[in-house]
Amino acid sequence: MGKADFMREAIRLSTENVRNGGGPFGAVIVKNGKIVATGVNRVTSHNDPTAHAEVNAIREACKVLGKFDLSDCEIYSSCEPCPMCLGAVYWARLSRLYFANDKKDAKDIGFDDSFIYEEIELDYSQRKIPTEQYMREEAMTAFRLWSENPDKIEY
Amino acid sequence: MGKADFMREAIRLSTENVRNGGGPFGAVIVKNGKIVATGVNRVTSHNDPTAHAEVNAIREACKVLGKFDLSDCEIYSSCEPCPMCLGAVYWARLSRLYFANDKKDAKDIGFDDSFIYEEIELDYSQRKIPTEQYMREEAMTAFRLWSENPDKIEY
Repeated sequence: MGKADFMREAIRLSTENVRNGGGPFGAVIVKNGKIVATGVNRVTSHNDPTAHAEVNAIREACKVLGKFDLSDCEIYSSCEPCPMCLGAVYWARLSRLYFANDKKDAKDIGFDDSFIYEEIELDYSQRKIPTEQYMREEAMTAFRLWSENPDKIEY
Repeated sequence: MGKADFMREAIRLSTENVRNGGGPFGAVIVKNGKIVATGVNRVTSHNDPTAHAEVNAIREACKVLGKFDLSDCEIYSSCEPCPMCLGAVYWARLSRLYFANDKKDAKDIGFDDSFIYEEIELDYSQRKIPTEQYMREEAMTAFRLWSENPDKIEY
């Protein structure tokens, strides 16, 4: 199996998910030329706004492989990851990202991906969700505790 | 209980989590002046790179309240959300976001939040994780299917 097969599978999953009542998104994670995990959007069926295809595929791959670092894996997503999923791709340290539809296509059918990308670039004061920094000094305690902990597991 | 109590609880959770071997991050979700869910970072203990405090708190709140829309809730996070968590905050449609430490503080103790914010603003071609758009036409099938489905549950 090659690149086209993996993307075709992500797209097949996205189409199947619409037929099953979910959002039109699918993703697969590949290690050494084999699919190790897949994900589809389950926001409405699982009442979970974080249950996007990429997040689900990443969580599943980590479970299957028993680790939180997927630097030996690639991800194929039927759509360009939203900021949440792109963040997850980076935290998982995936080695490569392929996507098919993009955020403009997603916007055209009513998904907020573009809007969230725009919000991220604004100052807190200009964002649609009112955002405020508060009690920074108190919170530094935990950061100092982390820095000074010789036994911490870094990630 | 008021704003200071909620943030103090998020910070207390972040400190407690370091003592329990996890990352220095905590979050609480509040509805009508009451905490309905909390979350701490469980990336290493759960082998899940998406298990950040805010994502965990949002997933828990949705589970407790039985819905994927938290527009009647606020979130207090001990640290400024990373792009993944900020995306989750937007998808959950939380009404308000408070945070204490910020992304610069997180960078100072070795977390990649700032780096991911920088990557998001770059063209695909310039990103550290090689990124490629591929097979867009094939993927449009799922989007058309979604658009034409009269029974879809929008989110």
